[in-house]
Amino acid sequence: MVKKPLDVLNRALQTPVIVRLKGGREFRGILNGYDIHMNLVLENAEEIQNGEVVKKLGNVIIRGDTVVFISPSE
Amino acid sequence: MVKKPLDVLNRALQTPVIVRLKGGREFRGILNGYDIHMNLVLENAEEIQNGEVVKKLGNVIIRGDTVVFISPSE
Amino acid sequence: MVKKPLDVLNRALQTPVIVRLKGGREFRGILNGYDIHMNLVLENAEEIQNGEVVKKLGNVIIRGDTVVFISPSE
Amino acid sequence: MVKKPLDVLNRALQTPVIVRLKGGREFRGILNGYDIHMNLVLENAEEIQNGEVVKKLGNVIIRGDTVVFISPSE
Amino acid sequence: MVKKPLDVLNRALQTPVIVRLKGGREFRGILNGYDIHMNLVLENAEEIQNGEVVKKLGNVIIRGDTVVFISPSE
Amino acid sequence: MVKKPLDVLNRALQTPVIVRLKGGREFRGILNGYDIHMNLVLENAEEIQNGEVVKKLGNVIIRGDTVVFISPSE
Amino acid sequence: MVKKPLDVLNRALQTPVIVRLKGGREFRGILNGYDIHMNLVLENAEEIQNGEVVKKLGNVIIRGDTVVFISPSE
Repeated sequence: MVKKPLDVLNRALQTPVIVRLKGGREFRGILNGYDIHMNLVLENAEEIQNGEVVKKLGNVIIRGDTVVFISPSE
Repeated sequence: MVKKPLDVLNRALQTPVIVRLKGGREFRGILNGYDIHMNLVLENAEEIQNGEVVKKLGNVIIRGDTVVFISPSE
Repeated sequence: MVKKPLDVLNRALQTPVIVRLKGGREFRGILNGYDIHMNLVLENAEEIQNGEVVKKLGNVIIRGDTVVFISPSE
Repeated sequence: MVKKPLDVLNRALQTPVIVRLKGGREFRGILNGYDIHMNLVLENAEEIQNGEVVKKLGNVIIRGDTVVFISPSE
Repeated sequence: MVKKPLDVLNRALQTPVIVRLKGGREFRGILNGYDIHMNLVLENAEEIQNGEVVKKLGNVIIRGDTVVFISPSE
Repeated sequence: MVKKPLDVLNRALQTPVIVRLKGGREFRGILNGYDIHMNLVLENAEEIQNGEVVKKLGNVIIRGDTVVFISPSE
Repeated sequence: MVKKPLDVLNRALQTPVIVRLKGGREFRGILNGYDIHMNLVLENAEEIQNGEVVKKLGNVIIRGDTVVFISPSE
């Protein structure tokens, strides 16, 4: 029942996630990859501010260092 | 009687915790997992601002780097 | 006579301490545990702002990364 | 199908990328190189603010530490 | 003649020092201990703001991570 | 064709570079040395603000930790 | 001709240097020592703000982590 954070990330692969960054910005997209630093690969990524899409980014590599949380939408 | 921080986290598994992040935001949820970096997995997570729920997040992986404190509610 | 910081922490176990965090907040409580990163476990923890208790937290795990100083009250 | 962040960077070599830095600045250029810290080499780099080119930089070495995300434009 | 920073700290043991922290606060006290991270133990510590004592702290463990400089008063 | 960031730095030795620091300041000078942390040695260094020279510094050792980007002017 | 940053520091020993810190403050003094983290020992150190001496500090140990640049005055 107890889950390692990286295992939860692994189970979220190929599904939509929300990623909150330091400073408050959010990204939405399909989680396509990650590594142990929580660097992330999102596909069809959109940048969100105040609930609205402000930028469509396609593929994006997010540095783990800037991530506050990742929320799988399963 | 002396407790290592990670042991206290371990004992809080599957129970509700409050997590304060840098910048002042708080999350409430069931602690479902953690690792040695204090990366956390919360279930039924809610984001709290000024004592009010501002967002329901379901599952969330919080990066330890952004955590100020974790308070088990036992 | 010369004291290592972690030895001083060790001697403060089970006694009241004041913990100042980055950003200026303070916590008061019984030091119940720590590790080499100065992650701390406080019991009967209270959050203090401008000398007043603003929150009672019970048990709390504080990440060492956010600590400015720890003051044992012996 | 699952992609490591550095593999995605590798596949973006010699193609145009957008790089967002902490603080909000963006760079556009041809990705000419990188290392495991996500230090980047851009060719024909331009600094962008509010969607406008504010500086042409030619070659530029960006420290990974300041990077928020990298978006290949494939 | 050339001095390693930690050797200078070592020679300052049991003597009064001034410690400047990030954000501008200063502490004055007797240097009772330190470690290789420049975590410090001060005795009879006082917190100083704008040249005035704002708090008497007794013993205090200061995390090296928050230290800007240490000035022995010999 | 693919270039490691440190190789690009190496090829820029003894040539003029522009260095942007966190906070926005820029330095201009001849790159005389570097190490793997991207600590840099500049000769005939000038500090630039809003495109104007605000200080002539001669030799300067810049800590890599504060560097945003380095742009060789070749 | 190519110089490692620490070699340049080494050659500056026992000579006057200017040290800029994060946040903009500067220190002037005789460089008496350093280590691989760029922790510095200054003798006859003075703190400078807007070109004026605001504090005479005698000996001072500066943490490398807060240093932006070091400029030998040779």
